[in-house]
Amino acid sequence: MPDKQVHDREVLDRLLDAALVGHVAVVDDDGQPFVLPVAVARDGDRLLVHGSTASRLFRILAAGAPTCLTVTAVDGLVLARSQFESSMHYRSAVVLGRCVVLDGPDKAAALRTLTEHLMPGRGADAREASGKELGATTVLAMPLDEWSLKVSDSAPDDAPEDLDRPVWAGVVPLQRGWGAPVPAPDLRFDLPVPAYVGTWPSRG
Amino acid sequence: MPDKQVHDREVLDRLLDAALVGHVAVVDDDGQPFVLPVAVARDGDRLLVHGSTASRLFRILAAGAPTCLTVTAVDGLVLARSQFESSMHYRSAVVLGRCVVLDGPDKAAALRTLTEHLMPGRGADAREASGKELGATTVLAMPLDEWSLKVSDSAPDDAPEDLDRPVWAGVVPLQRGWGAPVPAPDLRFDLPVPAYVGTWPSRG
Repeated sequence: MPDKQVHDREVLDRLLDAALVGHVAVVDDDGQPFVLPVAVARDGDRLLVHGSTASRLFRILAAGAPTCLTVTAVDGLVLARSQFESSMHYRSAVVLGRCVVLDGPDKAAALRTLTEHLMPGRGADAREASGKELGATTVLAMPLDEWSLKVSDSAPDDAPEDLDRPVWAGVVPLQRGWGAPVPAPDLRFDLPVPAYVGTWPSRG
Repeated sequence: MPDKQVHDREVLDRLLDAALVGHVAVVDDDGQPFVLPVAVARDGDRLLVHGSTASRLFRILAAGAPTCLTVTAVDGLVLARSQFESSMHYRSAVVLGRCVVLDGPDKAAALRTLTEHLMPGRGADAREASGKELGATTVLAMPLDEWSLKVSDSAPDDAPEDLDRPVWAGVVPLQRGWGAPVPAPDLRFDLPVPAYVGTWPSRG
Protein backbone atom coordinates (compact mmCIF):
# COMPACT_ATOMS: atom_id res chain seq x y z
CA MET A 1 0.00 0.00 0.00
CA PRO A 2 1.35 3.48 -0.86
CA ASP A 3 2.05 4.89 2.57
CA LYS A 4 4.45 7.22 4.21
CA GLN A 5 6.27 7.15 7.51
CA VAL A 6 5.07 9.98 9.73
CA HIS A 7 7.11 11.18 12.69
CA ASP A 8 4.63 13.73 13.98
CA ARG A 9 3.62 12.89 17.54
CA GLU A 10 0.38 14.87 17.14
CA VAL A 11 -0.73 12.60 14.30
CA LEU A 12 0.07 9.59 16.49
CA ASP A 13 -1.92 10.99 19.39
CA ARG A 14 -4.89 11.78 17.16
CA LEU A 15 -4.98 8.16 15.98
CA LEU A 16 -4.59 6.71 19.47
CA ASP A 17 -7.10 9.08 21.05
CA ALA A 18 -9.80 8.02 18.60
CA ALA A 19 -9.01 4.31 18.90
CA LEU A 20 -11.11 1.82 20.81
CA VAL A 21 -8.94 -1.26 20.24
CA GLY A 22 -5.45 -2.24 19.23
CA HIS A 23 -3.93 -5.60 18.38
CA VAL A 24 -1.26 -6.96 20.69
CA ALA A 25 1.06 -9.93 20.12
CA VAL A 26 2.76 -12.46 22.31
CA VAL A 27 4.96 -15.36 21.21
CA ASP A 28 4.99 -18.88 22.62
CA ASP A 29 8.08 -21.04 23.23
CA ASP A 30 7.87 -22.46 19.71
CA GLY A 31 7.98 -19.03 18.10
CA GLN A 32 4.27 -19.06 17.29
CA PRO A 33 2.84 -15.52 17.58
CA PHE A 34 -0.69 -14.81 18.83
CA VAL A 35 -2.45 -11.57 17.99
CA LEU A 36 -5.41 -10.48 20.07
CA PRO A 37 -7.56 -7.34 20.23
CA VAL A 38 -7.41 -5.21 23.39
CA ALA A 39 -9.15 -2.02 24.40
CA VAL A 40 -6.63 0.83 24.54
CA ALA A 41 -6.38 4.31 26.01
CA ARG A 42 -3.52 6.76 25.72
CA ASP A 43 -2.39 8.29 29.00
CA GLY A 44 0.28 10.83 28.14
CA ASP A 45 3.33 8.94 26.96
CA ARG A 46 1.96 5.46 27.52
CA LEU A 47 -0.81 3.21 26.26
CA LEU A 48 -3.05 1.55 28.84
CA VAL A 49 -4.61 -1.89 28.44
CA HIS A 50 -6.47 -4.05 30.92
CA GLY A 51 -7.72 -7.58 31.18
CA SER A 52 -8.50 -10.45 33.47
CA THR A 53 -5.77 -11.73 35.77
CA ALA A 54 -6.86 -15.18 34.53
CA SER A 55 -6.04 -14.32 30.91
CA ARG A 56 -3.00 -16.07 29.49
CA LEU A 57 -2.29 -13.05 27.28
CA PHE A 58 -2.23 -10.69 30.25
CA ARG A 59 -0.09 -13.04 32.33
CA ILE A 60 2.53 -13.15 29.56
CA LEU A 61 2.41 -9.38 29.02
CA ALA A 62 2.59 -8.75 32.78
CA ALA A 63 5.73 -10.89 32.94
CA GLY A 64 7.42 -8.37 30.63
CA ALA A 65 7.56 -10.34 27.39
CA PRO A 66 8.58 -8.32 24.32
CA THR A 67 5.42 -7.26 22.57
CA CYS A 68 3.98 -5.16 19.78
CA LEU A 69 0.79 -3.16 20.06
CA THR A 70 -0.63 -1.94 16.77
CA VAL A 71 -3.49 0.52 16.36
CA THR A 72 -5.01 0.89 12.90
CA ALA A 73 -7.77 3.04 11.45
CA VAL A 74 -9.06 2.32 7.94
CA ASP A 75 -10.21 5.62 6.48
CA GLY A 76 -11.31 4.73 2.96
CA LEU A 77 -10.74 2.88 -0.27
CA VAL A 78 -8.61 4.29 -3.08
CA LEU A 79 -10.04 3.37 -6.49
CA ALA A 80 -7.27 3.79 -9.01
CA ARG A 81 -7.60 3.15 -12.73
CA SER A 82 -5.42 0.07 -12.29
CA GLN A 83 -5.97 -2.66 -9.74
CA PHE A 84 -2.26 -2.47 -8.92
CA GLU A 85 -2.50 1.14 -7.71
CA SER A 86 -5.82 0.63 -5.92
CA SER A 87 -5.36 0.69 -2.18
CA MET A 88 -6.68 2.04 1.11
CA HIS A 89 -6.47 5.18 3.14
CA TYR A 90 -5.32 4.15 6.59
CA ARG A 91 -3.27 5.14 9.60
CA SER A 92 -1.39 2.52 11.59
CA ALA A 93 0.78 2.93 14.68
CA VAL A 94 3.15 0.15 15.71
CA VAL A 95 4.41 0.36 19.29
CA LEU A 96 7.22 -1.98 20.39
CA GLY A 97 8.38 -2.68 23.91
CA ARG A 98 7.35 -4.35 27.13
CA CYS A 99 4.41 -3.66 29.40
CA VAL A 100 4.68 -2.44 32.97
CA VAL A 101 2.21 -3.68 35.59
CA LEU A 102 0.30 -0.89 37.35
CA ASP A 103 -0.67 -1.17 41.01
CA GLY A 104 -2.19 0.87 43.80
CA PRO A 105 -3.40 4.39 43.02
CA ASP A 106 -1.81 4.30 39.56
CA LYS A 107 -3.87 1.19 38.72
CA ALA A 108 -7.16 2.70 39.88
CA ALA A 109 -6.40 5.95 38.04
CA ALA A 110 -5.55 4.01 34.87
CA LEU A 111 -8.90 2.21 34.99
CA ARG A 112 -10.65 5.57 35.30
CA THR A 113 -8.65 6.82 32.31
CA LEU A 114 -9.67 3.76 30.30
CA THR A 115 -13.34 4.24 31.14
CA GLU A 116 -13.29 7.94 30.29
CA HIS A 117 -11.40 7.28 27.06
CA LEU A 118 -13.70 4.51 25.87
CA MET A 119 -16.96 6.00 27.18
CA PRO A 120 -16.49 9.73 27.84
CA GLY A 121 -18.73 10.92 30.68
CA ARG A 122 -19.37 7.43 31.99
CA GLY A 123 -16.89 7.61 34.85
CA ALA A 124 -19.25 9.73 36.94
CA ASP A 125 -22.21 7.37 36.35
CA ALA A 126 -20.98 3.80 36.51
CA ARG A 127 -19.77 2.34 39.78
CA GLU A 128 -16.00 2.29 40.17
CA ALA A 129 -14.22 -1.02 40.63
CA SER A 130 -14.39 -2.61 44.09
CA GLY A 131 -11.30 -3.99 45.77
CA LYS A 132 -12.24 -7.48 44.64
CA GLU A 133 -12.77 -6.33 41.06
CA LEU A 134 -9.45 -4.48 41.09
CA GLY A 135 -7.83 -7.70 42.26
CA ALA A 136 -9.30 -9.61 39.33
CA THR A 137 -8.00 -7.08 36.81
CA THR A 138 -4.51 -6.66 35.40
CA VAL A 139 -3.73 -3.14 34.22
CA LEU A 140 -0.68 -2.64 32.04
CA ALA A 141 1.09 0.36 30.54
CA MET A 142 3.08 0.23 27.34
CA PRO A 143 5.48 3.17 27.02
CA LEU A 144 5.27 5.23 23.82
CA ASP A 145 9.04 5.09 23.41
CA GLU A 146 9.57 2.98 20.31
CA TRP A 147 6.83 3.64 17.79
CA SER A 148 6.37 4.05 14.08
CA LEU A 149 3.43 5.48 12.24
CA LYS A 150 2.34 4.95 8.67
CA VAL A 151 -0.28 7.08 6.96
CA SER A 152 -1.84 6.59 3.56
CA ASP A 153 -4.05 9.54 2.62
CA SER A 154 -3.26 10.40 -0.98
CA ALA A 155 -5.36 10.49 -4.13
CA PRO A 156 -4.97 7.60 -6.60
CA ASP A 157 -1.51 7.65 -8.13
CA ASP A 158 -2.00 6.03 -11.51
CA ALA A 159 0.78 5.61 -14.04
CA PRO A 160 0.64 8.30 -16.79
CA GLU A 161 -0.31 5.72 -19.42
CA ASP A 162 -3.41 4.80 -17.40
CA LEU A 163 -4.79 8.34 -17.10
CA ASP A 164 -6.59 8.18 -20.44
CA ARG A 165 -8.63 5.16 -19.40
CA PRO A 166 -12.27 6.27 -19.21
CA VAL A 167 -12.68 4.89 -15.69
CA TRP A 168 -13.75 6.87 -12.62
CA ALA A 169 -11.03 7.11 -10.01
CA GLY A 170 -11.09 8.56 -6.54
CA VAL A 171 -11.47 7.82 -2.88
CA VAL A 172 -14.50 6.40 -1.08
CA PRO A 173 -14.25 7.39 2.60
CA LEU A 174 -15.09 4.83 5.28
CA GLN A 175 -16.96 6.49 8.11
CA ARG A 176 -17.89 5.42 11.60
CA GLY A 177 -20.70 6.60 13.80
CA TRP A 178 -22.88 5.63 16.73
CA GLY A 179 -26.22 3.93 16.25
CA ALA A 180 -29.34 4.28 18.39
CA PRO A 181 -28.60 3.14 21.97
CA VAL A 182 -30.34 -0.09 23.04
CA PRO A 183 -31.45 -0.09 26.70
CA ALA A 184 -30.59 -3.14 28.82
CA PRO A 185 -33.56 -5.53 29.10
CA ASP A 186 -33.26 -5.44 32.89
CA LEU A 187 -33.29 -1.64 33.23
CA ARG A 188 -35.34 -0.95 36.37
CA PHE A 189 -35.96 2.74 35.95
CA ASP A 190 -37.40 4.92 33.23
CA LEU A 191 -34.06 6.61 32.53
CA PRO A 192 -33.16 8.52 29.38
CA VAL A 193 -30.00 7.72 27.48
CA PRO A 194 -27.30 9.87 29.15
CA ALA A 195 -26.62 13.17 27.38
CA TYR A 196 -22.89 12.40 27.17
CA VAL A 197 -23.57 9.47 24.81
CA GLY A 198 -25.01 11.93 22.31
CA THR A 199 -21.80 13.95 22.35
CA TRP A 200 -19.45 11.08 21.54
CA PRO A 201 -17.22 11.80 18.57
CA SER A 202 -16.68 9.29 15.79
CA ARG A 203 -14.25 6.60 16.91
CA GLY A 204 -11.92 3.90 15.77
CA MET B 1 -14.30 -8.83 28.10
CA PRO B 2 -17.32 -11.13 28.43
CA ASP B 3 -17.08 -13.18 25.29
CA LYS B 4 -17.86 -16.65 24.11
CA GLN B 5 -16.04 -19.07 21.87
CA VAL B 6 -18.05 -19.66 18.72
CA HIS B 7 -17.44 -22.71 16.53
CA ASP B 8 -19.90 -21.83 13.79
CA ARG B 9 -18.12 -21.54 10.47
CA GLU B 10 -20.91 -19.35 9.10
CA VAL B 11 -20.27 -16.74 11.80
CA LEU B 12 -16.57 -16.84 10.94
CA ASP B 13 -17.28 -16.38 7.24
CA ARG B 14 -19.64 -13.46 7.92
CA LEU B 15 -16.90 -11.69 9.87
CA LEU B 16 -14.21 -12.37 7.28
CA ASP B 17 -16.43 -11.48 4.33
CA ALA B 18 -17.16 -8.04 5.78
CA ALA B 19 -13.54 -7.38 6.76
CA LEU B 20 -11.22 -5.04 4.91
CA VAL B 21 -8.10 -5.62 7.02
CA GLY B 22 -6.63 -8.08 9.48
CA HIS B 23 -3.55 -7.88 11.68
CA VAL B 24 -0.75 -10.31 10.96
CA ALA B 25 2.32 -11.07 13.09
CA VAL B 26 5.86 -12.16 12.44
CA VAL B 27 8.63 -12.69 14.98
CA ASP B 28 12.28 -11.71 14.65
CA ASP B 29 15.27 -13.76 15.82
CA ASP B 30 15.15 -12.11 19.25
CA GLY B 31 11.55 -13.13 19.84
CA GLN B 32 10.23 -9.63 19.16
CA PRO B 33 6.82 -9.81 17.46
CA PHE B 34 5.68 -7.29 14.86
CA VAL B 35 1.99 -6.77 14.12
CA LEU B 36 0.98 -5.10 10.86
CA PRO B 37 -2.33 -4.47 9.11
CA VAL B 38 -3.00 -6.25 5.82
CA ALA B 39 -5.93 -6.21 3.44
CA VAL B 40 -7.69 -9.59 3.52
CA ALA B 41 -10.16 -11.54 1.40
CA ARG B 42 -11.64 -14.94 2.08
CA ASP B 43 -11.44 -17.39 -0.81
CA GLY B 44 -13.27 -20.51 0.31
CA ASP B 45 -11.17 -22.18 2.99
CA ARG B 46 -8.28 -19.75 2.88
CA LEU B 47 -7.52 -16.10 3.53
CA LEU B 48 -5.72 -14.15 0.83
CA VAL B 49 -3.26 -11.32 1.50
CA HIS B 50 -0.95 -9.48 -0.85
CA GLY B 51 1.93 -7.06 -0.64
CA SER B 52 5.10 -5.85 -2.22
CA THR B 53 7.84 -8.36 -2.93
CA ALA B 54 10.14 -5.73 -1.35
CA SER B 55 8.24 -5.86 1.95
CA ARG B 56 10.12 -7.50 4.82
CA LEU B 57 6.82 -8.73 6.26
CA PHE B 58 5.86 -10.46 3.04
CA ARG B 59 9.30 -11.98 2.59
CA ILE B 60 9.11 -13.54 6.07
CA LEU B 61 5.55 -14.76 5.52
CA ALA B 62 6.43 -16.13 2.08
CA ALA B 63 9.26 -18.13 3.67
CA GLY B 64 6.67 -20.03 5.71
CA ALA B 65 7.22 -18.52 9.15
CA PRO B 66 4.56 -19.43 11.74
CA THR B 67 2.09 -16.59 11.86
CA CYS B 68 -1.21 -15.42 13.26
CA LEU B 69 -3.76 -13.44 11.30
CA THR B 70 -6.46 -11.81 13.39
CA VAL B 71 -9.59 -10.12 12.06
CA THR B 72 -11.64 -8.04 14.47
CA ALA B 73 -14.85 -6.05 14.19
CA VAL B 74 -15.89 -3.74 17.02
CA ASP B 75 -19.68 -3.63 17.04
CA GLY B 76 -20.51 -1.40 20.00
CA LEU B 77 -19.93 -0.34 23.58
CA VAL B 78 -21.63 -2.06 26.50
CA LEU B 79 -22.50 0.44 29.23
CA ALA B 80 -23.03 -1.53 32.42
CA ARG B 81 -23.95 -0.01 35.78
CA SER B 82 -20.45 -0.87 37.00
CA GLN B 83 -17.23 0.02 35.21
CA PHE B 84 -16.06 -3.55 35.81
CA GLU B 85 -18.86 -5.04 33.72
CA SER B 86 -18.66 -2.37 31.03
CA SER B 87 -17.20 -3.76 27.84
CA MET B 88 -17.53 -3.96 24.07
CA HIS B 89 -19.48 -5.90 21.52
CA TYR B 90 -16.96 -7.40 19.16
CA ARG B 91 -16.12 -10.37 16.97
CA SER B 92 -12.57 -11.54 16.58
CA ALA B 93 -11.17 -14.41 14.53
CA VAL B 94 -7.65 -15.70 15.21
CA VAL B 95 -6.14 -17.82 12.42
CA LEU B 96 -2.89 -19.68 13.10
CA GLY B 97 -0.62 -21.33 10.58
CA ARG B 98 1.77 -20.61 7.77
CA CYS B 99 1.18 -18.87 4.48
CA VAL B 100 1.51 -20.49 1.08
CA VAL B 101 2.90 -18.50 -1.87
CA LEU B 102 0.56 -18.36 -4.86
CA ASP B 103 1.89 -18.35 -8.40
CA GLY B 104 0.70 -18.53 -11.97
CA PRO B 105 -3.04 -18.61 -12.66
CA ASP B 106 -3.79 -19.08 -8.95
CA LYS B 107 -1.95 -15.83 -8.18
CA ALA B 108 -3.78 -13.82 -10.82
CA ALA B 109 -7.12 -15.27 -9.73
CA ALA B 110 -6.34 -14.45 -6.10
CA LEU B 111 -5.66 -10.81 -7.00
CA ARG B 112 -8.99 -10.65 -8.80
CA THR B 113 -10.67 -12.14 -5.71
CA LEU B 114 -8.99 -9.52 -3.50
CA THR B 115 -10.14 -6.68 -5.75
CA GLU B 116 -13.70 -7.96 -5.92
CA HIS B 117 -13.80 -8.54 -2.17
CA LEU B 118 -12.44 -5.12 -1.24
CA MET B 119 -14.19 -3.14 -4.02
CA PRO B 120 -17.09 -5.20 -5.40
CA GLY B 121 -17.71 -4.40 -9.06
CA ARG B 122 -14.32 -2.83 -9.57
CA GLY B 123 -12.72 -5.83 -11.24
CA ALA B 124 -14.47 -5.09 -14.54
CA ASP B 125 -13.43 -1.42 -14.49
CA ALA B 126 -9.88 -1.15 -13.25
CA ARG B 127 -7.04 -2.49 -15.35
CA GLU B 128 -5.77 -5.92 -14.28
CA ALA B 129 -2.17 -6.32 -13.17
CA SER B 130 0.46 -6.45 -15.90
CA GLY B 131 3.17 -9.08 -15.89
CA LYS B 132 5.57 -6.58 -14.35
CA GLU B 133 3.08 -5.64 -11.65
CA LEU B 134 2.39 -9.30 -10.91
CA GLY B 135 6.13 -9.79 -10.51
CA ALA B 136 6.31 -6.97 -7.96
CA THR B 137 3.50 -8.47 -5.88
CA THR B 138 3.57 -11.35 -3.43
CA VAL B 139 0.24 -13.10 -2.99
CA LEU B 140 -0.17 -15.44 -0.04
CA ALA B 141 -2.88 -17.77 1.17
CA MET B 142 -3.40 -18.65 4.82
CA PRO B 143 -5.46 -21.83 5.22
CA LEU B 144 -8.52 -21.62 7.47
CA ASP B 145 -7.51 -24.81 9.28
CA GLU B 146 -6.66 -23.66 12.78
CA TRP B 147 -8.94 -20.84 13.82
CA SER B 148 -10.81 -19.64 16.86
CA LEU B 149 -13.58 -17.11 17.02
CA LYS B 150 -14.76 -15.01 19.93
CA VAL B 151 -18.01 -13.11 19.94
CA SER B 152 -19.29 -10.66 22.52
CA ASP B 153 -22.86 -9.61 21.77
CA SER B 154 -24.76 -9.71 25.06
CA ALA B 155 -26.62 -7.08 27.04
CA PRO B 156 -24.86 -5.65 30.13
CA ASP B 157 -24.51 -8.35 32.78
CA ASP B 158 -24.48 -6.41 36.03
CA ALA B 159 -24.28 -8.05 39.43
CA PRO B 160 -27.71 -8.29 41.12
CA GLU B 161 -26.69 -5.76 43.77
CA ASP B 162 -25.98 -3.17 41.06
CA LEU B 163 -29.38 -3.40 39.36
CA ASP B 164 -30.99 -0.89 41.71
CA ARG B 165 -28.50 1.82 40.80
CA PRO B 166 -30.43 4.56 38.98
CA VAL B 167 -28.03 4.55 36.07
CA TRP B 168 -28.91 3.95 32.42
CA ALA B 169 -27.40 0.76 31.05
CA GLY B 170 -27.40 -0.65 27.56
CA VAL B 171 -25.47 -0.95 24.35
CA VAL B 172 -24.40 1.82 21.98
CA PRO B 173 -23.83 0.27 18.53
CA LEU B 174 -20.81 1.31 16.50
CA GLN B 175 -21.73 1.59 12.84
CA ARG B 176 -19.73 1.92 9.67
CA GLY B 177 -20.74 3.38 6.36
CA TRP B 178 -19.41 4.93 3.18
CA GLY B 179 -19.03 8.66 2.80
CA ALA B 180 -19.40 10.73 -0.36
CA PRO B 181 -16.84 9.61 -2.99
CA VAL B 182 -14.08 12.12 -3.76
CA PRO B 183 -13.02 12.15 -7.44
CA ALA B 184 -9.30 12.04 -8.22
CA PRO B 185 -7.91 15.52 -8.98
CA ASP B 186 -6.49 14.23 -12.27
CA LEU B 187 -9.72 12.69 -13.55
CA ARG B 188 -9.74 13.43 -17.28
CA PHE B 189 -13.34 12.65 -18.13
CA ASP B 190 -16.68 13.75 -16.78
CA LEU B 191 -17.51 10.35 -15.35
CA PRO B 192 -20.12 9.63 -12.70
CA VAL B 193 -19.24 7.63 -9.61
CA PRO B 194 -19.77 4.00 -10.64
CA ALA B 195 -23.14 2.56 -9.65
CA TYR B 196 -21.52 -0.39 -7.86
CA VAL B 197 -20.00 1.96 -5.28
CA GLY B 198 -23.50 2.92 -4.21
CA THR B 199 -24.39 -0.71 -3.56
CA TRP B 200 -21.48 -1.47 -1.23
CA PRO B 201 -22.60 -2.93 2.07
CA SER B 202 -21.27 -1.74 5.40
CA ARG B 203 -17.79 -3.14 5.98
CA GLY B 204 -15.20 -3.85 8.60
